[in-house]
Amino acid sequence: MKQILILGAGRSCSSLIDYLIKNASANNWQVVIADKDLSLAQEKADWGDAASAIEFDIFNEQQSKEEITKADLVISMLPASFHIHVAKICAANGINMLTASYVSDEIKALEPEFEKNGAVLLMELGLDPGIDHMSAMKVLDEIKEQGHELIGFETFTGGLLAPTKDDNPWEYKFTWNPRNVVLAGQGNVKFIQEGRYKFIPYHRLFRRTEVIHIPGHGFFEGYANRDSLKYLDSYNLHGIKTLYRGTLRRPGFCKAWDIFIQLGATDDTYKLEGVEGMTHRDFINSFLSYNPNDSVELKLAHYLNLDLESEEMYKLKWIGVFDDEPVGLTEGTPAQVLEHILKKKWTIQEDDKDQIVMWHKFDFMDNGKHRQIQSDMVATGEDSIHTAMSKTVGLPLAIGAKMVLNGKIDLKGIHIPTEKAVYDPILDELGSLGFEFHEREVEV
Amino acid sequence: MKQILILGAGRSCSSLIDYLIKNASANNWQVVIADKDLSLAQEKADWGDAASAIEFDIFNEQQSKEEITKADLVISMLPASFHIHVAKICAANGINMLTASYVSDEIKALEPEFEKNGAVLLMELGLDPGIDHMSAMKVLDEIKEQGHELIGFETFTGGLLAPTKDDNPWEYKFTWNPRNVVLAGQGNVKFIQEGRYKFIPYHRLFRRTEVIHIPGHGFFEGYANRDSLKYLDSYNLHGIKTLYRGTLRRPGFCKAWDIFIQLGATDDTYKLEGVEGMTHRDFINSFLSYNPNDSVELKLAHYLNLDLESEEMYKLKWIGVFDDEPVGLTEGTPAQVLEHILKKKWTIQEDDKDQIVMWHKFDFMDNGKHRQIQSDMVATGEDSIHTAMSKTVGLPLAIGAKMVLNGKIDLKGIHIPTEKAVYDPILDELGSLGFEFHEREVEV
Repeated sequence: MKQILILGAGRSCSSLIDYLIKNASANNWQVVIADKDLSLAQEKADWGDAASAIEFDIFNEQQSKEEITKADLVISMLPASFHIHVAKICAANGINMLTASYVSDEIKALEPEFEKNGAVLLMELGLDPGIDHMSAMKVLDEIKEQGHELIGFETFTGGLLAPTKDDNPWEYKFTWNPRNVVLAGQGNVKFIQEGRYKFIPYHRLFRRTEVIHIPGHGFFEGYANRDSLKYLDSYNLHGIKTLYRGTLRRPGFCKAWDIFIQLGATDDTYKLEGVEGMTHRDFINSFLSYNPNDSVELKLAHYLNLDLESEEMYKLKWIGVFDDEPVGLTEGTPAQVLEHILKKKWTIQEDDKDQIVMWHKFDFMDNGKHRQIQSDMVATGEDSIHTAMSKTVGLPLAIGAKMVLNGKIDLKGIHIPTEKAVYDPILDELGSLGFEFHEREVEV
Repeated sequence: MKQILILGAGRSCSSLIDYLIKNASANNWQVVIADKDLSLAQEKADWGDAASAIEFDIFNEQQSKEEITKADLVISMLPASFHIHVAKICAANGINMLTASYVSDEIKALEPEFEKNGAVLLMELGLDPGIDHMSAMKVLDEIKEQGHELIGFETFTGGLLAPTKDDNPWEYKFTWNPRNVVLAGQGNVKFIQEGRYKFIPYHRLFRRTEVIHIPGHGFFEGYANRDSLKYLDSYNLHGIKTLYRGTLRRPGFCKAWDIFIQLGATDDTYKLEGVEGMTHRDFINSFLSYNPNDSVELKLAHYLNLDLESEEMYKLKWIGVFDDEPVGLTEGTPAQVLEHILKKKWTIQEDDKDQIVMWHKFDFMDNGKHRQIQSDMVATGEDSIHTAMSKTVGLPLAIGAKMVLNGKIDLKGIHIPTEKAVYDPILDELGSLGFEFHEREVEV
């Protein structure tokens, strides 16, 4: 009997826990679900003998050490900044550990201890980071194995709303952390295009989009993510001419979202004055010049050079930013107020389905001939609980846990799933569960 | 014989030191000029018996205490962050002190000690902050004394190049710290307009300018400074309907400068890749999309919707940003690279004259009638050494020092020159030295 300890039992853990419990008896696992909210853990564990629930506080050092050292493998679904506390105990006691978060420098420093004590810490094993690494490295390795020269790699992922019959002109709702959506793109964007370093400031980012077509799923637009250059190291792509990572939205989203950026409404660095009693309309007006005789709509359209009847203005009206409705906060940054307003329309309803879209483009030279492969994966959620997001984040972790426990992944130290020995078996099983990449060669 | 200790003997200290030495024998002063570069201090002290020079290091605690406690009054021209070290010694030993910098929280905490030991620390006694406080408070106090209700206050200052016969289409050069000019406006802008809080993000700031006309000096454009709201407290303006502080430039400057902001070329938060060997043209191109068949000029004009023959493009060409000349740095942030390029054309030459322009607008209700007063001061430098900047920063300090030593300013604790007892005598003497404000009532 092997014990798997899952730290955290929130919404995003459903698919992970489902998989482990379903496969528990066949694999002789005992699954322990730990959360600071015992009832949440109990709800998830309510599936028979294979699972049990405990109340758990990572800041209780004694309990943390006791529970973690009982386990053969720990999956931490805690907030990313808490992983270090788990990792220290796992490293010291040779316990295997998995997370879906990025490797921090602080965690990286534990590598020798994990190695010495014969355990593995597998990180970045969710969707993005996770499935993106695995699906990209598979094709990148194939291109290299065939002796071709890679010249370009672009990769885009989007957490979207599945196509609906709704009248929502944004074709978007919050399917993950709303705060991260509002702040998305802040920071500096760096990438490489045809051998040249390129930089985009935040206030131009949502106007520098690319059009992407995925057969069977239509058109998308992509905007660049922060620092594509760090993948030079992690994917071993030094010398590549084009390297670009981005985020996908449905067409027209970015141009409308850019209005909030232009106004300053996504700023999270200062507190607004006078939030108490402020209406949606007041909020927008606070970023526009004073003129009591003009409407907020006209001032905004003129300021940002938009037609009053444009799609962007239609989207703004639909989301309610011109309404005289009170915001309903007593204080906040512009970004917090905007998030609060958007949540009124963009909160996912029970019958809404989310959709994960991932797309890669690989350019390479085959004996002097330029060739291109595109690959994509589109996953649609069942409802607001069994989301595509929870599956694509949880299943790689669950499969990875199985492979570590049954010895199919036999690594020590700290790893991300860029190695064939890791990504091959996990991608195979993901494919059999319906999360398959479609690859095709495209004429260039 | 009273001793005045001046800490710092850099360029900006010329007018301060000139005034004190000229007035030394009549007032029975001994002026000690202290700098970490002894030759610099000696050069400034080379005027006869009234002045002497010493080598001085504020981080040498023993020397600092020894020299400061010998003085009756200390003027610190050190970088703003060093004032605290001086202030601690002055507070503990009851020594009067003056600076032209903003009062920090750390310094404010020394107030009881200054009071207890019977000394004054006068801060914000230069140009801006300094002359702006004094000249504004004079009119604000008069309006209140006459029983009128103040409804609006706007104030703008610019450190500019005096009108020349040059072909420089920017009509601008660096007349003070170039780095601060390149970074100007970063952060968040807050002000009040007709009773409403208004916010402008950095990437819109240089397009939200006001036109200002000063009789005899022509037109200027003004953009908003960071946080005008802090003057609600320091000028006691709570309840005012409009409150706006800004910076002046000559017409057309802001629209051209905005191009650098839109590109991301003023960003100081990350290091550029590939600065070694980069040309001016490469630098601009790194913010534009890749297209080997189009010129950098056309890509930029199209990206930012400019006519190729516009004034803005003319300014960019003149400043050399499209040149194939190497930048000449090995690393740097975008802002550092831009500063380095601009310095090649914008460094002040020996015969260049700087010009300080300050303008206030006061709106008030006089028995139900809306009235407006405007006031301005324009000061022009003699050459690149005897600059208007060095005079307008140094003379208020010098005059303030005289008034403290002869008892005309009889305050204890920490003060800024917003009190009539301070601003009245200093403004009077500044006026007699030619730094006069012109006030006029304007029809509204």
